[in-house]
This record gives sequence, C-alpha cells and structure tokens, in this order.
Amino acid sequence: MKQHLLSAADLSRDEAVAVLDTAEQIEASLAGREVKKLPTLRGRTVVNLFFEDSTRTRISFELAAKRLSADVINFSAKGSSVSKGESLKDTALTLQAMGADAVVIRHGASGAPYQLASWVDGSVVNAGDGTHEHPTQALLDAFTMRKRTGRQMGDDLSGLKVTLVGDVLHSRVARSNVLLLHTLGADVTLVAPPTLLPVGVEAWPCNHSYDLDASLPGADVVMMLRVQRERMNASYFPTEREYSRRYGLDATRAARLGDDTIVMHPGPMNRGMEIAAEVADGTRSTIVEQVANGVSTRMAVLYLLLGGAQ
Amino acid sequence: MKQHLLSAADLSRDEAVAVLDTAEQIEASLAGREVKKLPTLRGRTVVNLFFEDSTRTRISFELAAKRLSADVINFSAKGSSVSKGESLKDTALTLQAMGADAVVIRHGASGAPYQLASWVDGSVVNAGDGTHEHPTQALLDAFTMRKRTGRQMGDDLSGLKVTLVGDVLHSRVARSNVLLLHTLGADVTLVAPPTLLPVGVEAWPCNHSYDLDASLPGADVVMMLRVQRERMNASYFPTEREYSRRYGLDATRAARLGDDTIVMHPGPMNRGMEIAAEVADGTRSTIVEQVANGVSTRMAVLYLLLGGAQ
Amino acid sequence: MKQHLLSAADLSRDEAVAVLDTAEQIEASLAGREVKKLPTLRGRTVVNLFFEDSTRTRISFELAAKRLSADVINFSAKGSSVSKGESLKDTALTLQAMGADAVVIRHGASGAPYQLASWVDGSVVNAGDGTHEHPTQALLDAFTMRKRTGRQMGDDLSGLKVTLVGDVLHSRVARSNVLLLHTLGADVTLVAPPTLLPVGVEAWPCNHSYDLDASLPGADVVMMLRVQRERMNASYFPTEREYSRRYGLDATRAARLGDDTIVMHPGPMNRGMEIAAEVADGTRSTIVEQVANGVSTRMAVLYLLLGGAQ
Repeated sequence: MKQHLLSAADLSRDEAVAVLDTAEQIEASLAGREVKKLPTLRGRTVVNLFFEDSTRTRISFELAAKRLSADVINFSAKGSSVSKGESLKDTALTLQAMGADAVVIRHGASGAPYQLASWVDGSVVNAGDGTHEHPTQALLDAFTMRKRTGRQMGDDLSGLKVTLVGDVLHSRVARSNVLLLHTLGADVTLVAPPTLLPVGVEAWPCNHSYDLDASLPGADVVMMLRVQRERMNASYFPTEREYSRRYGLDATRAARLGDDTIVMHPGPMNRGMEIAAEVADGTRSTIVEQVANGVSTRMAVLYLLLGGAQ
Repeated sequence: MKQHLLSAADLSRDEAVAVLDTAEQIEASLAGREVKKLPTLRGRTVVNLFFEDSTRTRISFELAAKRLSADVINFSAKGSSVSKGESLKDTALTLQAMGADAVVIRHGASGAPYQLASWVDGSVVNAGDGTHEHPTQALLDAFTMRKRTGRQMGDDLSGLKVTLVGDVLHSRVARSNVLLLHTLGADVTLVAPPTLLPVGVEAWPCNHSYDLDASLPGADVVMMLRVQRERMNASYFPTEREYSRRYGLDATRAARLGDDTIVMHPGPMNRGMEIAAEVADGTRSTIVEQVANGVSTRMAVLYLLLGGAQ
Repeated sequence: MKQHLLSAADLSRDEAVAVLDTAEQIEASLAGREVKKLPTLRGRTVVNLFFEDSTRTRISFELAAKRLSADVINFSAKGSSVSKGESLKDTALTLQAMGADAVVIRHGASGAPYQLASWVDGSVVNAGDGTHEHPTQALLDAFTMRKRTGRQMGDDLSGLKVTLVGDVLHSRVARSNVLLLHTLGADVTLVAPPTLLPVGVEAWPCNHSYDLDASLPGADVVMMLRVQRERMNASYFPTEREYSRRYGLDATRAARLGDDTIVMHPGPMNRGMEIAAEVADGTRSTIVEQVANGVSTRMAVLYLLLGGAQ
C-alpha cells in the first residue's frame, strides 16, 4: 500500500485484496481475544480532521484507531478559525509538527486531501472530500460483498454484478465504488435519472441506465445511494414522489430480486424515499453489517498504512 | 443486575445495595494504588450519546469508563443530523454494529433510553431522560447518604428520613430518588408548592407537603433540587422571591436542622435561590462529595453491567 | 517547580532551565523508543478546560498528556452553561471532586487561572488568560531559542538578543515572553507603534522602540506577534497597509538580518501581514519547530507538576 489513501484508484487489485484480507484477519484475531484490542499502533497518533460533520464516519475511524491502541485526536474544524487555502496548509504543518502519524480528513472541497498529502510526511486518509471520493466506504462495501457472496481470503469480486442506484452525480460513495469495484473485477451498472448522472459517465468503467426495473434482474448486489434532502428541490432533481416511484427500492421491486441478491446502503437512510423500511430491515439488507465492516476495514487501512513501518 | 439501567425501579433492594457496595470496594481498591485505574474493562467500548448538553454528567461517565480502562466515544447528537424516532433507531443499530458494549444516553424525551434498549444487545444506561429519570444520580445520592450517616457495607437506608425540596414536577432526579430511596427503606417527604408536585403524587411511595418549615425537624437528609431558570416565568411557578422565601434553604432554616443532618444538591446550584451560598459551602453540605461519589458509583454501574460477563 | 504554572514569573531561572532540560530529556528518551509514549502519568487525569476556542493549544496539551499516558478530558466551556464568577468556582470544585490532577485552562478573562488555582488542590496550568499571560508559549519559545542557538542542557539564554514585534498591548504571548526571557538572561527589545505598547512599558524588564528597522541589526531572534484581525479597525490600530509597511517582516527586512538570526511566530500567522510568506517558509523560520517543541515543553511541564509526586 502507498503512503496515503486518497482515492479508490490508488489501489491495485492486489493492494485492494490485501486490505480485505487484512480486515478479515483482524476480525478473526479479535474474535479469539477477551480484550478486543490489538497493540499494533501503540504510541502512534491518528488525527480526525473533520471540516464537515459526520459523526458516523468519525466514530468509525476513532474506534478503528483505538482498537489498534493508537492515540486519537478529534479536530472538528467546523466553526473553528480554520478555513481553506493557506490555512489548510498551516493546519497540515501544525499536525505534522505535533507528530501526527495519520490524518483522517473529511472536507467539503473535492481534492482537499490531495493538498494535505502534499504537505505532510505522515499518511493521509480521505474520509470524504466534496462530491469526489470516499475510498474507505468503497473498501467496506467490497469487504461486505466478498463476505456475503461466499468468496474467500485472496479472492477479488470477479464477475459480481452490482447495480448502483441514485444520485451518482453528487455521490463520492458512487465514484469510489465504481473505481474499486472495477479494479476488483466486478461488473457495475449505474442507474439514475439522466440529470443525476455525471457528464462523461460514458468514459467510466461501468454501464449506466435510466431504468431501474430493467437493471435489477441478474444483479448480485443492489446498492442504493442516499438522497441528500437539500438537493431535492434543485431543478435537476425529480420530485420526491417521482424519484421514489421510479428509483426507490420498494417491497415490490425487492421481491423480484434473486434469492441471494443483497441490498446495500451506505447510511444514513431515508426510509420510504430511496429504500422502503421493510427492505432496509429485511434479510437481504447488509446495512448493519456494513457499519460493523467499516470498523474492521478502517483498522486494516490504518494498520497497513502505519503498522508496516514497524 | 439486569442488562440495562433505565430506571431506579429496575433495582431490587439487594441489587441497589450491591451497587453501593461495589462503589465502596472500588474506592478502597483505588485508594491503595499508585495508578488510579482498574484494568477491568480493557477492550470494551462505552459510548456517551448525549442529545442534550450536560458536561458534568458526560465527564463523570467518561472518567468512570476511563478509570476502568474502557475506550470512550463521545457522541454529541445535539446539532448533528440525528433526531428523534426512526433516526434514533438507526443510531442505535449503528452503535451496536460498531461494537459499543454500553451506551450512556442523555435525551430530552422521557422514555428514549427504553427505545434504545429495545434495539441493542449491549447495555444502556439512562443518564437522564426528559423529566422522567436519572437513576445513577439517585445511586450516587444513596451512596453519599449511606457513607455520611455511618452505615456500613451491606446496609441499606432503613429508617433514614429524607426531605426532598423543590420542583418535583419536572425533576428526573426527584423521581429516581423517590423510587430508589423507597427500595432502600428510607422515609421520603417531598416538599414543593402545589403547582410543582405531579398529579398523582399521592400514589408515590412517599409523603408530601407544601410547608418546608414543618418538614425539616427530624430530617436526616435535606435534598434541595435545582430550580430551572427557564421555568421561573411559567404560570405554575411562584415568583423567584416567593419561591426563595418559602422553599429556599437559607442560613436561618439550616441553623434549625439537627446536628448531623446533611444537605444535598445534585448541582449545578443557583446560590441564593434554592440554597444560600453559606449553606452550600458549609460543613453539612455534601455537594462536592456527591460529585466525587458520582464517579465511583458510575464505575460500579459500568463494572456490574459490563464486567460481570468476563 | 511550584504547584501551578500561572505566569512565566512563577519560574525562577533554575526552574525555567529545569523545564527546558526536562523537555530535552523527554525528546531524547522518546527518540530511542519504538512506542512514542512514556508511562509516567498513567492513572492521572488532565482536564482541558477551554472557555475560548483554541484547537491548536488544546491539541498540543492533549497530545502532551496522552504521550505521558494520562487520561485526558476535553471540556469546552464555550456554549455550555458555564460562565464566569461563582460558576467558575463550582466548575473548579466539580473537576477537583472528580479527581482532576491537573486543569489546563484557557479563559478570556485575565486572572481566571489564579481564581481557579485558589479553589483546587491539583495543579492549574494557564493556557492563555485574556491579554495577560501564556506561560507555556514562552517556555516553548525559550526551548526553541536555546536549541537553535547551539546552547546546551543546563544553559539559560544569557546575552541572547531578542526583538519582539507587534501588538504587545494585547499580547499574552509578549507578556509571558518578556518575563521568562528576562529570567533566563536574554536582552529583549519590544517594537510596536506607540498605541500598541502598554502604558507603563518603561517599567518592564526590557527595552522598547517604535522603529523596526533600527531594532533588527544585532538581533539573534526576531519574534513576530500575530495581528488579531478583529483589532485592525480599532482607533488605536494603524491601517493594515501602514502596519504591514512599518512593522511587517518582509523579504527585504529579512535579507538584512544576521546569518544566524532566527525568525519566530507563535502562529497562526497572517501571511503577508505581519510576516511575508517567503519569510515564514524560509530557513530562518522556526515556526514549525515551535509547534513540535510545544508538545515536548508541555510534556515537561505536566511531568514536573504531576510526576514529581510519585
């Protein structure tokens, strides 16, 4: 693995598989222990540098670091004097001078983690930058798919059929998933209204469609994206009712899925909007597993980025 | 002890005494150590899920968990996207999936901890829910009473005369105290203006009165409740001056108390309102001890809820 | 060292040198370890009590305490119900009752740390109080000067020529530096517009001047103070352009400095205002080192205040 994890595209097929394998080994190792911690990163410092609120992601990284025995510093830049541009540079130099071994950054501006990485000697992990990427989400999703489809240590996702549904245009989760799933050999189909697909989607390593019903048969995985409520009234967005009717995964559509097809969602969900409550809580759903897998996967990422040096 | 601590009524007499005994043992054990920590909960995760600000209570639980060597995650839900209803459920499932062994919840809605407990496998500790309950406050109060009245390990509070004064109607502290003190055999008298006693108080396991002066003679313990400033202008609330004159513990009233009578307050105080500064800072006052006992008692609760499984 | 660190004037010459020596020993000790932590303060509790935002200072203390294995509680009093006067006393008594071994306080009111110290048995560290003092900043600055000027363990700063430039009137950094540098034997010259020097500066143990260019020749250290943007429009403040022209350290001025002269700044900087970007990022600049030295120096302070008791 390289020094940083900024994009899902940073990972080769073998590196991505190594992350999944490491996550699996960590889970196995903790399962056999009374004390659910590994001493690997004792004395290392992980900084959670969050310019946007995301309690869920912050806690997942905080737990991952603590279960590896690292010290964690939470730095909520929102509302502090820290802002963009040169200030981010000074923040970077400050954190580095203080001995941060890894900085986990969530930022509203696409590309901010790249800037940060250019200034520090430690590792930078992109925990979501604008509409750009969220690579650890893609890794935990891939980990979940590999586990639930009966694949083994060392396996990639060759031949897995993944249908990814929703506001792809604004979704860093979609972007990172498409890149990583392609690397791992899966076949991805994006489904969205035309206004919610990015210009140039033809060049992405996947198929796309405007028709959800036509895209569900044969899917091994259906991943629903979160609708951002603040976007619903934008001109490019269908009405809420129209969206839900055409692109929501309701019980009727779910009933037509293959027996082993799983349903994923990065959370938090708008139940009744992009996904029906009964589907979200049903047996196909991996939503809660994804959260659990998030901690293991982030442990694996921190372990590989920081632990290898020892 | 059961899986959760949601209400003071969850505890039988023997269970409540066991909490007090455990707190006492923990204090004795730490007093003899150079390093003021116990390794009991290493590898366990305690989440402080606070929907309302309460730095004092949050820090008390945080210290309790850290002194048992647990990892602590602070989750201030106030101002985050988390709100009521289904969202609380998703938060619960997320915390559980992340491996939270205990969730300490403070919530503005009475009953929220019960909902949370219905969704998670770990333990839930109610750190105050609306006007309903605050059971660890009652436990630390009972611990303080037992210590200060010369009772021993194994003892309950049989025959102890406790006068509880103030806005009982809105007080979760009062409610939890009445329940626990009754369980432990104490005789409780509530004193408040008629508008600040709950409807149905006749059915509570205690006496009540509108006359503070008549209720002080013979009391072993006088517990003053905090006046919530935001309630003072409500129609059911006496004027500030009237309240203080009739229901405040001033120096004159304090001077008429028995030699060994103690004065308690859950904090933070409005000095000069429900309690005079000289009474709050006097030798009868246990206010600072209550804070110290809060950490020990919460260590006991976390220890009994989480440690027993090992 | 005494019980508290409230002012740079609390330290005798030998005590100040002992802090610098301890910081140097800690750095040497950690450099030889794989796990960058010392077990010294295990079981001790350090509370960061911040009434003003200062992420940088808070994180520096948090890291210092964690690298000594203390438990750290962050208490952001801003926005909480805590305010001045009696309330600060109750906060103090609460933290003490909870077993805080040290309270690191940042407060907008000059003198607040003294009040706090009068109420608690533990140690109080002033992390900045109004326009009064910031003694650990002065210590880390002195540590940086001693290292960069080739001095050794045991040395003070005798004969070092330090020019301190900027809004001295409102600067707690300036005040603490003047006091500590005088104690350590350095010669200090304050440079500022007349309106930004305090009344009575003649009684301070240093020289002062209104002319930056006349004060630079012969300086071993030039320390630039941060301009507080909120003060720029005040009547006593020169225009931004005038200030920068007369009191800013631009490249031209920097080029005239002696070969070994170092340039310091407590951060965060206004690049282009009190210091040019190329000077801030140049080889003379110790700005990043100051941040690193801040952690070591604060470790030394906490170690000497708390560790000596063991």
